[in-house]
Amino acid sequence: MKQYLKHDPWLIVEEDFNRNYNEITESVMSLGNGRMGQRGNFEENFSGKTLQGNYIAGVYYPDKTRVGWWKNGYPEYFAKVLNAANWIGININIEYETLDLQTCEVRDFRRVLNMQEGYLERSFVALLKSGKEIQVNAKRFCSIVDDEAGAIRYSLTPLNFDAKITIEPYIDGGIRNRDSNYDETFWDEVRKETGYGEAFIELRTRKTGFHVCTGMCIEIEQDGARIDFQSQPIRQEKYVANRMTLECLQGQETTIYKYAVNLSSLNYDSDSVVSEARKYIQRITGKGFERMLIEQKQAWADKWKMNDITIEGDVAAQQGIRFSIFQLNQTYTGEDERLNIGPKGFTGEKYGGSTYWDTEAYCLPFYLATADQKVSRNLLRYRYKHLEKAIENAQKLGFKAGAALYPMVTMNGEECHNEWEITFEEIHRNGAIAYAIYDYVRYTGDVHYLAEYGLEVLIAISRFWSQRVNWSEAKQQYVMLGVTGPNEYENNVNNNWYTNYLAAWTLRYTTEAVGMVKELDAEKFNELCDRIHFREEKEITTARHIADHIHFPYDENRQVFLQQESFLDKELMPVSDIPKGQRPLNQHWSWDRILRSCFIKQADVLQGIYFFEDEFDPETLQRNFDFYEPMTVHESSLSPCVHSVLASRLGRKEKAYEMYLRTARLDLDDYNNDTEDGCHITSMAGTWLAVVKGFGGFRIKGDQVILDPNCPDNWESLAFKIRFRGALLEIKATQTEVSIQNFSEKNAEVLLYGKSLTVSAKSQQTVKRATGLPIKSRKK
Amino acid sequence: MKQYLKHDPWLIVEEDFNRNYNEITESVMSLGNGRMGQRGNFEENFSGKTLQGNYIAGVYYPDKTRVGWWKNGYPEYFAKVLNAANWIGININIEYETLDLQTCEVRDFRRVLNMQEGYLERSFVALLKSGKEIQVNAKRFCSIVDDEAGAIRYSLTPLNFDAKITIEPYIDGGIRNRDSNYDETFWDEVRKETGYGEAFIELRTRKTGFHVCTGMCIEIEQDGARIDFQSQPIRQEKYVANRMTLECLQGQETTIYKYAVNLSSLNYDSDSVVSEARKYIQRITGKGFERMLIEQKQAWADKWKMNDITIEGDVAAQQGIRFSIFQLNQTYTGEDERLNIGPKGFTGEKYGGSTYWDTEAYCLPFYLATADQKVSRNLLRYRYKHLEKAIENAQKLGFKAGAALYPMVTMNGEECHNEWEITFEEIHRNGAIAYAIYDYVRYTGDVHYLAEYGLEVLIAISRFWSQRVNWSEAKQQYVMLGVTGPNEYENNVNNNWYTNYLAAWTLRYTTEAVGMVKELDAEKFNELCDRIHFREEKEITTARHIADHIHFPYDENRQVFLQQESFLDKELMPVSDIPKGQRPLNQHWSWDRILRSCFIKQADVLQGIYFFEDEFDPETLQRNFDFYEPMTVHESSLSPCVHSVLASRLGRKEKAYEMYLRTARLDLDDYNNDTEDGCHITSMAGTWLAVVKGFGGFRIKGDQVILDPNCPDNWESLAFKIRFRGALLEIKATQTEVSIQNFSEKNAEVLLYGKSLTVSAKSQQTVKRATGLPIKSRKK
Repeated sequence: MKQYLKHDPWLIVEEDFNRNYNEITESVMSLGNGRMGQRGNFEENFSGKTLQGNYIAGVYYPDKTRVGWWKNGYPEYFAKVLNAANWIGININIEYETLDLQTCEVRDFRRVLNMQEGYLERSFVALLKSGKEIQVNAKRFCSIVDDEAGAIRYSLTPLNFDAKITIEPYIDGGIRNRDSNYDETFWDEVRKETGYGEAFIELRTRKTGFHVCTGMCIEIEQDGARIDFQSQPIRQEKYVANRMTLECLQGQETTIYKYAVNLSSLNYDSDSVVSEARKYIQRITGKGFERMLIEQKQAWADKWKMNDITIEGDVAAQQGIRFSIFQLNQTYTGEDERLNIGPKGFTGEKYGGSTYWDTEAYCLPFYLATADQKVSRNLLRYRYKHLEKAIENAQKLGFKAGAALYPMVTMNGEECHNEWEITFEEIHRNGAIAYAIYDYVRYTGDVHYLAEYGLEVLIAISRFWSQRVNWSEAKQQYVMLGVTGPNEYENNVNNNWYTNYLAAWTLRYTTEAVGMVKELDAEKFNELCDRIHFREEKEITTARHIADHIHFPYDENRQVFLQQESFLDKELMPVSDIPKGQRPLNQHWSWDRILRSCFIKQADVLQGIYFFEDEFDPETLQRNFDFYEPMTVHESSLSPCVHSVLASRLGRKEKAYEMYLRTARLDLDDYNNDTEDGCHITSMAGTWLAVVKGFGGFRIKGDQVILDPNCPDNWESLAFKIRFRGALLEIKATQTEVSIQNFSEKNAEVLLYGKSLTVSAKSQQTVKRATGLPIKSRKK
Repeated sequence: MKQYLKHDPWLIVEEDFNRNYNEITESVMSLGNGRMGQRGNFEENFSGKTLQGNYIAGVYYPDKTRVGWWKNGYPEYFAKVLNAANWIGININIEYETLDLQTCEVRDFRRVLNMQEGYLERSFVALLKSGKEIQVNAKRFCSIVDDEAGAIRYSLTPLNFDAKITIEPYIDGGIRNRDSNYDETFWDEVRKETGYGEAFIELRTRKTGFHVCTGMCIEIEQDGARIDFQSQPIRQEKYVANRMTLECLQGQETTIYKYAVNLSSLNYDSDSVVSEARKYIQRITGKGFERMLIEQKQAWADKWKMNDITIEGDVAAQQGIRFSIFQLNQTYTGEDERLNIGPKGFTGEKYGGSTYWDTEAYCLPFYLATADQKVSRNLLRYRYKHLEKAIENAQKLGFKAGAALYPMVTMNGEECHNEWEITFEEIHRNGAIAYAIYDYVRYTGDVHYLAEYGLEVLIAISRFWSQRVNWSEAKQQYVMLGVTGPNEYENNVNNNWYTNYLAAWTLRYTTEAVGMVKELDAEKFNELCDRIHFREEKEITTARHIADHIHFPYDENRQVFLQQESFLDKELMPVSDIPKGQRPLNQHWSWDRILRSCFIKQADVLQGIYFFEDEFDPETLQRNFDFYEPMTVHESSLSPCVHSVLASRLGRKEKAYEMYLRTARLDLDDYNNDTEDGCHITSMAGTWLAVVKGFGGFRIKGDQVILDPNCPDNWESLAFKIRFRGALLEIKATQTEVSIQNFSEKNAEVLLYGKSLTVSAKSQQTVKRATGLPIKSRKK
């Protein structure tokens, strides 16, 4: 845990340069716009600890799988989003000295990520070995308006000298992934072009053949006025630059504007990426930095208007939730249905930018409540389009007749992960994909999605569950052998309660969905039956039989669900009994010891109760929470959020707050000692869940919004907005009252603390917590 | 399965050159002498399919572990015996044509491994592209008399031409392991020397720093007389040779004698390996090829006198058992207690020449019955010397207080394997090491071994078991969670019957051994207690409590032991139900499917019944055999032998014979399609078990030899020799009678078919099987 970044409601601030933490800061201060992104690297050369990282959504490489001992069924490759050409680079040379913060003294250093307006700025004074002092101010952003472009303003002011300064803005395509299995290069050069103040390089990924043109255009100002300059084009292997030498006087500010674009064959014809990049860059250069920045601020203001959550009285908590919302918005906009949410977004290389069950289980609710319905629909459609591959994947593992197993990790629908206990056994992911369909339909009321796409996916997943269980003669029940639940600290267990529950639930929900679709669009249903050979009666009878006769391990004594069949054979003890210095367990204990222990990496039974909370009474939740939570080490970033939500539901505010901070400030405080690899983007959705579903007590039941706000004691207030079926509501809760603002044109019915409340169109209602009675109602 | 090698009682014969099978033949025709060995490669250049392989016992390299996803506790390296300098090479050039069986026509090819006399010979006529025909006869051996040396006689006869032939005998140290994790080179060159007809190269292994000098000396004969020749020394990187050009006339035989030595720093000072190699080579060259060969034949005759097993009436079975005995003798002589028995011996690189539980569980009985007692004692001492490392290994996994976990795979006592389900969980290996101590003491009566070494190992292993179990509140018994039994087609199971049985047995036997040692040598016992902090009362009480209260899964219904607790939740079906074309399962089914299935890779419950057969009545054996055998796919080479022994015990001769052939001819017929990687040396001990313990019905109970011979119906007779406590007995069984020859100076008491029989010193007894009565007694 590190706490060198300043607490601030809207900014992430590094004051004084923390060399040793630089890779952490780079992760935290990453910029992105859903289409491209980059780590918070320096523009000028830096010889210290750094991971130069630029990433382009959807541009990936199938890196040959690294395996110790091959198991039949392992995939041949692991697809990863590639580190792409560095477009921010501007090398600075002052009379034979290179500006490099590693080798000079640094004064007045400040690096700030402005989350409100969506840019990164940095200022410092460098004291070179020669004694020269130079002031640098840099500002840059990835535009969310022109989402294939970025812009940099980089200013130099000699403080105690006049000199010729050589400036070399460049694009470097000679990058390697730090995360590469066999240390291979993933990019080939196709073409490069240089011109006056501009340069373009076209690279192609090996194997996948994506073309990407990265281009730049340079403008220079001195004393606030645009100047002409001599520019020497530089062309080296996978590298293009313009070199210019400028006379810079003491106290005079020289400003370099660097406009850059990244155009890929995902969106353009391969042959035209360079010419399109030229056009694009002309357009944005024409707009100019200041105009682009104004548009950027405006666009971010619009986003915040919909998404912002305010917490008064607790800056650390406020910063945490805003950071989470900011990064989620930077990572995924929902505009392109081919994309998804990589666990590290554009902040690092680990986990390869691929898609995990995180999307469905943790991220979807955020997009449902804060973005246009088409965004979550696109997330669902992403899996629909991978259905064929999921069926192939199941076939490879011996399943048949249209059964689908969605991959644990994927880029294009094919499985990428190769640990048998996860790849083949952590199959609950399939259930999360089914659950997301239910969650979406429940939230949006868009039952047509079922007819169009959802049911086909549900049937394929149900077919998988039907084949994956087997009848146990011994138990006279169906059993599911050899699985890994969400708690990856148990592997290859039998009858994981969560997985069995999800499976039974999927089978039932599929049956329901069949009914709904038949009623909604019989013709479409018949067409589907024909196409996928759905034998309704037989498959539904089987599904019901399994759902009704599957084994759920249960402890009669404690009246808790058992995480897996043999859980009670373990030595049960609380986390507090683990000797000091032995945590995190995954860094101190051998794998078998972890597996044999009762300690839980992340919510497992509790994840199921969280998903299906309506199906369990509070006493059941409480008993299971009290049984499992003390044994949970939360060594997954996806664990504390679920516990925070459930603790809120149980009215355990302290526990809920503790768990909230752990998820909200995970990266800001480098809680798990791994932020240098990148931020935990998908778990940021968990932060949002902890606030909105947890402290806000927001949920949907039937067609109704339910709210049970319950802030931590140290918060003055919590306010958040939610979209629900065309309505936009803002809920603000203090320790004493709750007000609900309805921005929409029609009345909203909510259930607040269990009581019905109508908030009229365009008006606000305030309710006293103690009495539950409205105290104010105001037309807006 | 391939059947291109001729059936013969003493020879392995390849007639006509089988290019595509060459790597299989090379494995089968490997030569070795316990100190060094090599595959059946060609001397002359060969550009076809070949794995050039030369191996020196004990000279290994710690190859960096290859891992897909790292688990805490994995070892850093996998130690492997290295492919070493090629010393057999003799390149032949005939007027610009290279002799290469890949590029010329081959006539009258014959490659023969003579198991009786311990050499490999080869003859053929090569028809070169130019039309020249040349006859080649080659013979070579690894001397078991001078066990750091080998010798080759290589003769050329031009059949239809006179020509200058260039001959280049060489030593090539530029070899790479085919089995290398990161494609690295493992050898560095230290020195090379060349002289008239001789050359030496000294190489050093990277990291481990073993020095090996490989040297050669050449002599040439024409028309049966030694000739002088011009020799041009060749020195290239890691390569030394002598090149000589000889005038060869049509019909004239030119013979090259190549003497070679491999001296390693395992046995010599690093600085003197070259000078010692010079001396060594002078000595053997002085002896000469013919003399060396006579000594070789004599030494092999001596070995066969002790070890041979004859089977009359079934050449395939005869060849199989001789091949097994031959290869076991080539692999391990027991003379050097630093060495052990690699699963591939000197026949290939796979499994790295390391030590597995195969040694204790399968090989020890062979050496107990056929070799001097010191050989098996050395095998035990090998593990004793690794005890400290085994304790460290257990510590790494969280065990304490002197608990030892022997590694799954090792070269120097450190664990090399990295699959969590095996490395950390296949812990029954620890039991096999305890069992071997019991087996040795029972066989030899050498209880002093317990006092000297055995008890210390037993206590350390028992400490491991005591810590590895935990008390299950649910069961009110001890349980052992998360293990992999001998059947590696189940992983991470709870309460594997075999492992629990072995653990309980070890705890009891350790208690007994404590008693024995206290009685035998109280002083030594006290010294041991002090040294290893053995708290006798406490540890023994705990051991007894665990042994008495450990859970053994059992099916009351079928009255069989359950392989693991959840076995009956599986869908049970016989192997015959597996659809055609889906075997072997490990090549057709994904790993999870294998794990969920009931199919068994190798004996598991049955392995336990085999080890402790006195503790189970025949009905119990029969029920368990009938339950498990039909579900067993025998996809481990260590499986059929145990089933053969047990089937013999049950009087199921057909099943016993089927299983025998599967183990005895595994490599000769390339049963598993993998002999090209090397032969299955440790499973060859299983062949011996199937014959001697199975068909011979040989076992030891108390101080007595028990015999229940029961040959397969198609055998005329079976004869084998056993050593037992100073006695040497030969048992010959036909379908009607059994005769026992006692070669020793004192009478031998045996229990034959349940009846006591005294075979007087130096005499023979023959018993009619039908009556069980002696029919002949003859003083020898």
